[in-house]
Amino acid sequence: MIVGLAKKQQGGVDGEREMLASLQARLACRAGMATTTAGVANGFVQGNLAILPEKLAASFHRFCQLNPKPCPVIGMSDVGNPKIPSLGIDLDIRTDLPRYRVWRDSEVVEEPTDIMAHWRDDLVAFVLGCSFSFEEALMADDLPIRHIERNVRVPMYRTNIECSPAGPFAGPMVVSMRPFKPADAIRAVQITSRFPAVHGAPVHLGHPHAIGIADIAKPDYGDPVPVEADEIPVFWACGVTPQAVIAAAKLPFAITHAPGLMLVTDLRNKQLAVL
Amino acid sequence: MIVGLAKKQQGGVDGEREMLASLQARLACRAGMATTTAGVANGFVQGNLAILPEKLAASFHRFCQLNPKPCPVIGMSDVGNPKIPSLGIDLDIRTDLPRYRVWRDSEVVEEPTDIMAHWRDDLVAFVLGCSFSFEEALMADDLPIRHIERNVRVPMYRTNIECSPAGPFAGPMVVSMRPFKPADAIRAVQITSRFPAVHGAPVHLGHPHAIGIADIAKPDYGDPVPVEADEIPVFWACGVTPQAVIAAAKLPFAITHAPGLMLVTDLRNKQLAVL
Repeated sequence: MIVGLAKKQQGGVDGEREMLASLQARLACRAGMATTTAGVANGFVQGNLAILPEKLAASFHRFCQLNPKPCPVIGMSDVGNPKIPSLGIDLDIRTDLPRYRVWRDSEVVEEPTDIMAHWRDDLVAFVLGCSFSFEEALMADDLPIRHIERNVRVPMYRTNIECSPAGPFAGPMVVSMRPFKPADAIRAVQITSRFPAVHGAPVHLGHPHAIGIADIAKPDYGDPVPVEADEIPVFWACGVTPQAVIAAAKLPFAITHAPGLMLVTDLRNKQLAVL
Repeated sequence: MIVGLAKKQQGGVDGEREMLASLQARLACRAGMATTTAGVANGFVQGNLAILPEKLAASFHRFCQLNPKPCPVIGMSDVGNPKIPSLGIDLDIRTDLPRYRVWRDSEVVEEPTDIMAHWRDDLVAFVLGCSFSFEEALMADDLPIRHIERNVRVPMYRTNIECSPAGPFAGPMVVSMRPFKPADAIRAVQITSRFPAVHGAPVHLGHPHAIGIADIAKPDYGDPVPVEADEIPVFWACGVTPQAVIAAAKLPFAITHAPGLMLVTDLRNKQLAVL
């Protein structure tokens, strides 16, 4: 109790800074860091960002509700409020990501390192879970992750699995693919089932054609990785889905994170495990 | 409390008989029923049986300990005692299965409907979990099970996965195969992971050759079932493994159940779920 108080008195932002690598990462972004957050603040949950005007936010929220595997909401802001205290101490969604994408009429018009100039009183920020969390759990169980071993981006594919539409938001689910030997694929299903807040169990395995993937060697996003003859391609719903859906919705205005440059939160990956 | 007492007072074997379909099934066996227990006493756990002389029982128990996926022990008797109260009211392992196999020097020499004439004071009975329990859980989730739909035996295969040996007990794991569409295969992994006492999660999926299965259409035991082009063959460790291992161990004497004619216990399948 006294120790707790002492820490708080020392503390505030500077005191906490020594404690949480996630806050350090956000403050680095705020100071201009604009590189990938892969491998940053290990153990902490990272999130995809989608910012929309209030009148579209209700439809988008419903889209997420209807499509929880690609769009698991782990936090959202009040209208016009750039803080999301449930996700992090002193978190300011306008400055705390490395890089943003500003969309106008379905085109990326700018990729700034903060969005102070774009923030408005009618904006709502959504933070969606990201596969970095479940990849940490897979690696903790010694499962090899091909794209991490090769230091490339995870391969991602548009599928023929249609998301349930809501308002202007509609389109195919995007999936990420990780190849595993069969016994590891089974273990990966078990592990990721524990993490519904970060895409959860795979949506498919084994037959890329069945979900509309013509050529596994040609991902629609990210980089290709080989699938060996004794391996199974395993597909998870991907956080690129909402970004693709936002792009397709022909919205006058939206903001997202830049791919791979995520929001680092103070949540711990292990806290997301349901079991 | 009074109701409970009243039932006990009415009760004994005849009173319980009205309550438990499992006890009814055992008493039917005791009275001579000698047909498959598939579909009998739905909801109750059925078990594989292995009976060995005491001096081999310790090695066999260790074999089970080392190979819990094919050999999950759900009950065992004291030496020379044919009762296993933890598995059932009034259960007598000598009479309560439909049919037995008596093995001498690795040959089946007799398939009697009781083993009263073979019981000895040095025998130990092991009851091992069986896939009927997890199949019930799969069907409760509306997953189609091909061999049940076709009313044939599940296809089973010897693999190149070696069990961990113990004493004279050694040999390859036998697996059962059920084909599923990919999303159902993922769900089947989740469901059966909850039931480690009845083989648990699959041991393999997708690449039969990788586990030494040359031709999926030619099972070593049971009946073939088709695997469609959009399906994945999913393989579970199988309770035939200990029987194959016992046959290979060149033991002077052993008793097992006859395949498909199992011990019906008073445990409920749902009690076996770990989550």
